[in-house]
Parts: sequence; C-alpha cells; structure tokens
Amino acid sequence: MFERYVLPRLDGLRRSPVLRRTIRLTGLGESAMESLLRPVYGTVPPGVSVTTLASPGELSIRLSSSGPPGRREKAEARLDGVVGAIERVLGPYIYSLEGESLEAVVGALLKEKGLTIACAESCTGGLIGHRLTDVAGSSAYFLESAVVYSNEAKTKRLGVPKALLMKHGAVSAAAARAMAAGIRATSGADIGLSVTGIAGPSGGSPGKPVGLVYIALARSRGVSVVRSLFFGRREDVKFQSAQRALDLVRKSLTKPPRKPL
Amino acid sequence: MFERYVLPRLDGLRRSPVLRRTIRLTGLGESAMESLLRPVYGTVPPGVSVTTLASPGELSIRLSSSGPPGRREKAEARLDGVVGAIERVLGPYIYSLEGESLEAVVGALLKEKGLTIACAESCTGGLIGHRLTDVAGSSAYFLESAVVYSNEAKTKRLGVPKALLMKHGAVSAAAARAMAAGIRATSGADIGLSVTGIAGPSGGSPGKPVGLVYIALARSRGVSVVRSLFFGRREDVKFQSAQRALDLVRKSLTKPPRKPL
Repeated sequence: MFERYVLPRLDGLRRSPVLRRTIRLTGLGESAMESLLRPVYGTVPPGVSVTTLASPGELSIRLSSSGPPGRREKAEARLDGVVGAIERVLGPYIYSLEGESLEAVVGALLKEKGLTIACAESCTGGLIGHRLTDVAGSSAYFLESAVVYSNEAKTKRLGVPKALLMKHGAVSAAAARAMAAGIRATSGADIGLSVTGIAGPSGGSPGKPVGLVYIALARSRGVSVVRSLFFGRREDVKFQSAQRALDLVRKSLTKPPRKPL
Repeated sequence: MFERYVLPRLDGLRRSPVLRRTIRLTGLGESAMESLLRPVYGTVPPGVSVTTLASPGELSIRLSSSGPPGRREKAEARLDGVVGAIERVLGPYIYSLEGESLEAVVGALLKEKGLTIACAESCTGGLIGHRLTDVAGSSAYFLESAVVYSNEAKTKRLGVPKALLMKHGAVSAAAARAMAAGIRATSGADIGLSVTGIAGPSGGSPGKPVGLVYIALARSRGVSVVRSLFFGRREDVKFQSAQRALDLVRKSLTKPPRKPL
C-alpha cells in the first residue's frame, strides 16, 4: 500500500524518475500547518517539491523528488529527510505517511489489535459507518452503527434515558457519553463511538451554535468525551465530525493510556 | 430551487445570455440512455447544446441554450421543447428536472406527504442515512438507520430470526424483507427501507456473486423486494445500491399503487 510510485517523465529526451509521497493529516487548520511547516521549508533540498492541500477536516502534503536517471536512491533519501522533518513538527496530526484514508488506517489498527467497533451516530447521519465500510474486509471489526437521529431512537436503541435528554439536550456531553456507552453495551463491541451535534444550517442557539459537536469514545476503561466547534456548511460539519471521531479512535489505539479515560 | 440561471458570457463584445438546465436520472445504463435519446437528438434546435454525463448509478443531461441579448424567452422556449422531448422518452428514469440530488427529491416527497422513514442498511454501511441527512431539515422525516453489518445486529436490532439467516443467508430476499419489516416495526416509521448485499471485492460465491443486492421497502400495505446485480468497485456497488433504494422510495411515493405490494 506504500504510495511510492515512479512516474516516468520526459525531461527533454531523457526519462527522469519522479518519486512521490503523500502525507495525510487532520486536527489542525491550514494556517497552523503552514506556520509549523515554515522552518521545514528552509531545509528542503533542491529537486524536492512540497505541495500542501487543505479542505475542512483534512490536510495533505504531497512531496515529489526528481533527479537524473539511475539516481533513485538519492531521490528516495532526499524525500525521507523531508518526511522526517515534517514528522518532527506535525507528528501528532499525521495519520498516514502513505496516502491512506483515515478509515483505512483505523481499520488496520482495529484488525491488528483484534478489536471490534460499533457506532452511535446522530449528526453524522451514517457517514462514519459508510466510511468504515468503504474499507474491504471491514466486517472483521465493524459490527454496526446506530444512526439515531430522533430522540426516541436514542432512547430505544441505546438506552439513553429520556430524562437525560430532557435535562441536557441531545447535543451535550452527557448525551454523547450515554450514546457511546449504550452502543458499546448493546452491541458487545470493544469500542463504542458516538457523535452528536448540530450540523446546521438551522437548529443552533446562542448556547449551542451550529457546528457544536460532542464525540465520545467508550472502552473497557471508561468513556471519554470531546467537545468541538466546526465551521462550514452542513456537509463540512458532518465530515469534520466524522474525521475527528475516527481520529480519536486512531489516537486511542496508538497512544498508551496515560490515565483512566 | 429551479436551476435555471443565466450566466453572462462575453460573445465578442456583446453579452449573450446562456440558459442551463440539468436533468438527473437513475436506473438505466449510459448506452440505453443514448439509444433512447437518439431520436431526440435529431430534433434539437440550433443554439441548444445537450451534454450527457454518466457514472455508475447516476446519469445527467445538461442542456444549454444561448441566443442574442434580449431574446431570453425564445431561449427558454427552445429548452422547454427539448426537456419535454427528453421527458417523453426517459420519463420513468428522471428524478429531477432541476438538478436536485435524489436524496433531496425523496426528502421533499416525504415532507410533502407527512411521512417518516427509517432504514436498515447492511452493505451500504450507512450511506443511505448519510445521504438522507445531507438534506437540511431531514430530521422532520428521517427517524433512524440501523447499520446492521453483523448477523447479530440484524437479529438484535431488527428481530430478523436467526433461523431465517441460517436458511437463506444474510444476502437474500427473505433477509431484506425481514429487515425492512423489522426497522419499520421497531422504529414506528411509515416507511422501512432495507438493503443487504455483497459489496465485494471478496465474499462472493457462484450462487451469490459480488454486486448481488436485495432492497426491500415496507409500507402499511406490505413489503416489496427487488433483486439487483451491480458492477464495479466496492464503492460503486455501495453507491448504486443506495441510489436504487432511494429511487424505489421515490417511485413508491409518486406512483399510485397498482396492486398490493
């Protein structure tokens, strides 16, 4: 799966190899990435080009290196150096050095660790399940997703108490926690992942604006919850929510737990 | 929402209005569409251009008409004539004459009729819920989607009998029927929509090849089921399944029932 392919390119009359890499990141904005990359740019050797692409919730850095024919090793080494420098400044945000999708990375981690996942989705509407099942072989670790759009479904499918929804609202840390714990308990999965938020354009209020999203992760050691505020259109809020949710799973599977979640 | 906008275009030094329309279709292949369109092409008046676009499960026809400034009515009339001719040959496959998405068309129909929907998704993995909830205001009619990837989830969430899954398999007309009836009954929605199939690339067998998909629609008058065989990559099979499923809902809401389903 290493996206390290050689494109033959006509350079005058000689064929010159062009090596490429794609680094994919999430969890920071474009301007923050550019600030962090600034010192790296000064060290990029000649022959290597660095292009950044940004969309809501998703960033990528494309590197290419070309050189005279037969000097592939040198071009590889130059790329490795730049990738290393980028990893040092952006490490925590990088989910793939090989151009893979976040759902493929999460899927590979779940498979490797022999863990199963089930989701409870409100504002993402099924996008997380859709993305996880875009990966061939996902039935090995993905059990189900309860897309609980209505409050009745949250209560009936996941056992979220009506009183909790009345007191805190469906978009709240308490609801997210109850949804994650509920899907984990009712599905029997190792990991329960929940998302509840306001995708917009309507439904916001001064206390709970459009783009407010709570994501919770339930594991055997407990439930953690994250509050985020995303901007953009309805589709952007949904995508960023799914992205943050999948990245939380990735982080929980790669980092050693420092304290009980 | 009528996609009938005027683009100002520089035609030499004069501004000429260009009117555009987008017709969207599903349920037939590109070559079938082209065969049906052939007689229409012979009648397209000068000044009107017709462009067709095709991807798995989705076709669109883009029309544009330009003319001298101040002659907008004539350009409109020319477009209306071509749209009418296309409707006569492709009517049953057209879901929008205004460039809207299929999920927006289905959503508007549900809203107009005051009906609710709930889904039971297996091979689509949440894509149908995701698409339905891409439409702002979908909480008025979309209650939930049970993405029941595992057999256990099909049984636990929807009451699909284990014995049925053992006898017919999870990808079967019987399973699709039980899933649609199950989600309708457990959610309390007016319409229960289910999809079960083999998205591939693995999991196929001679009797049940990759791309085999059963879609069932449960309404108060009974449950109907459709068997389809789609081609393409995993994502293509998922998209085509979602497209066919949403189109079945659209048809059931636009056609008078001829016989008990």
